Amino acid sequence: MRHWLLPEYIEDVLPAEARRMELLRRQLLDLFHTHGYRYVIPPMLEYVESLTTGVGHDLDLLTFKVVDQISGRLMGVRSDITPQAARIDAHLLNQQGVTRLCYAGSVLRAQPSGTAQTREPLQIGAELFGHAGIESDLEVQQLLVHALQAAGIAKPHLDFSHVAIFRALVESASIAPQLESELFQALQAKDASTLSELTKSLQASIRAALMALPTLYGDARVLDTAAEQLPSIPQIQNALGELKQVAQQFLAPDVEVSFDLAELRGYHYHSGMVFAAYAEGYSSALAQGGRYDEVGQVFGRSRPATGFSMDMRALVNALPPASGNKGILAPLTEDVELRSKIKSLRAQGEIVVVELPGHEQHRAELDCDRVLVKNDKGWEILPAA
Amino acid sequence: MRHWLLPEYIEDVLPAEARRMELLRRQLLDLFHTHGYRYVIPPMLEYVESLTTGVGHDLDLLTFKVVDQISGRLMGVRSDITPQAARIDAHLLNQQGVTRLCYAGSVLRAQPSGTAQTREPLQIGAELFGHAGIESDLEVQQLLVHALQAAGIAKPHLDFSHVAIFRALVESASIAPQLESELFQALQAKDASTLSELTKSLQASIRAALMALPTLYGDARVLDTAAEQLPSIPQIQNALGELKQVAQQFLAPDVEVSFDLAELRGYHYHSGMVFAAYAEGYSSALAQGGRYDEVGQVFGRSRPATGFSMDMRALVNALPPASGNKGILAPLTEDVELRSKIKSLRAQGEIVVVELPGHEQHRAELDCDRVLVKNDKGWEILPAA
Repeated sequence: MRHWLLPEYIEDVLPAEARRMELLRRQLLDLFHTHGYRYVIPPMLEYVESLTTGVGHDLDLLTFKVVDQISGRLMGVRSDITPQAARIDAHLLNQQGVTRLCYAGSVLRAQPSGTAQTREPLQIGAELFGHAGIESDLEVQQLLVHALQAAGIAKPHLDFSHVAIFRALVESASIAPQLESELFQALQAKDASTLSELTKSLQASIRAALMALPTLYGDARVLDTAAEQLPSIPQIQNALGELKQVAQQFLAPDVEVSFDLAELRGYHYHSGMVFAAYAEGYSSALAQGGRYDEVGQVFGRSRPATGFSMDMRALVNALPPASGNKGILAPLTEDVELRSKIKSLRAQGEIVVVELPGHEQHRAELDCDRVLVKNDKGWEILPAA
Repeated sequence: MRHWLLPEYIEDVLPAEARRMELLRRQLLDLFHTHGYRYVIPPMLEYVESLTTGVGHDLDLLTFKVVDQISGRLMGVRSDITPQAARIDAHLLNQQGVTRLCYAGSVLRAQPSGTAQTREPLQIGAELFGHAGIESDLEVQQLLVHALQAAGIAKPHLDFSHVAIFRALVESASIAPQLESELFQALQAKDASTLSELTKSLQASIRAALMALPTLYGDARVLDTAAEQLPSIPQIQNALGELKQVAQQFLAPDVEVSFDLAELRGYHYHSGMVFAAYAEGYSSALAQGGRYDEVGQVFGRSRPATGFSMDMRALVNALPPASGNKGILAPLTEDVELRSKIKSLRAQGEIVVVELPGHEQHRAELDCDRVLVKNDKGWEILPAA
């Protein structure tokens, strides 16, 4: 039996990449910290109800379940940290105003989700609770751009949508849940013929709007087209107004912005504006986020919420290879002067590797480009032979 | 239903403590890094065989199992990172000489193990593979002392034992596995009457040695007593010799050392010297470690191995409260001068929190002791009112 074989979509991160990931993690957490986002560490395990209620069936299917030997109840291994942050905001911190939180950790999924090539994303993200206005959406979107730039992505591309548009259409036409779900799938697939079939019995203006959604994508001009083609329901015009403010915020040459009104990413969970970040060289979204005002409710306190998260495993590919700072090889001796020299080198961040007896022939594996050698002036660092 | 209630022995880490834990994590990983220990990130999930073969039944019982929907095979959520590091050394890195690895991450346990008050330790540790001599044990023990001191434990206490002593007695008397297991439990419990009962049929010298083990604890002098009282089997004398070298290494006033030859911590997994670290104010061991030369075998390559690990959740209590660096409150404006001032303050590590509209009455919650205010000289930082 090959005990070393890992399950599909499960991987080790080996030294060179792990170090890069660690440095990226620190950089992002420090960025969030200096923006007032406070770091929390939610657990890997919770009761299934608190992990999956209010966040939709999709997440429930992705969640590994185990039985709690202590209570006999079903627990889940988290497949998303965002609802955990909402629970902490709603129940534990209990602030009345704005609460900003950030986190970083593994999540597990029973199947790789979407285009992800892993069942263990290393999720890092930031969430803002307690503010319902567009200003908080703009704040987290700007923070995402800073985070992507810190990760080496100079020119990220952000794609926006707004789930309130589809919701408003469903509500105003009193569409039943079954049809809503079928329409949702047809929209996600941009499947015009199925959409045409499904909307046959709906009133003309709603039908026209649902048929138009898959064509409403592109740059900011598409928002004007949408304002003309979609019914003047207040929620829809309000959603388009929010998207226009986003278009104005990112009038910068270093960010590309687009809109796609049929995109309903996270529809079962999000309640307002949603977005995803892309970059050249990456086939799938690097970050996803949006507004999810209703998730806190299941924890006993309804709070407006917006935020984003990303998978560090995917992101780390953008980073340049780790700097070539190799180690210094030191002999194993009791020499007090050498010990103190090694200590001060390490305090400066140098890697000092002590050579253990009997291993001279494997010296090359230790990845040292310098050696500590004793001469008349004491211990000196010389280039490795 | 109280969705916010967590399972027993499962906890959130909230902002103040989470920040301390993050800073400790960085400090320890950097310490390991500068000693040549390379960081790896093994997965949370593996096939059960690779997680639990060769590491004993105890760990198997503690491991949560889930079915892999892709292969139909049983997977486990890791309950210990050490065997994963051994797998990476044996199979993936494949060096012939010494390989030093370190790691940090959550592990999950079906029950709290030993005296631990958590089912999700945040395990951090360092492992040294490929060297069988005492020099590598001394290196990891010294590294552990540095790590504890970095965590604020000025005067750690190390307690040593050596599982080869009990193994040698079992082998030389050809004791059957069932009796071995009963003896093991009686020794762990230091239960003299059961020991006396169990050893009745054994030859006199082995019986005397097994009865003596629970009395052989204390400072380095106990090693001389042991050398007299235990049979002169080479493995036993060799084990005592190694423990003597440890006693010599720690002839420093900042580390207390003791020996307890009946302590068989991790017997099913370790193969040589074992140790645990204690400190004033902590009821249970802060770190555990030792030699486990046989674990690599199941991954196809037998490699000598020694190392230690600790739970950051327990360790973080030793740290002083996080420094009182509070934030700076900034108004939300488009002012270019303010934006650039905020950017440079954040780059210096300052927390700058932007106040979102409509939340003036909750200002106190934002934990800012300074504000950015515009006067004739431009934007200035003033103490908060």
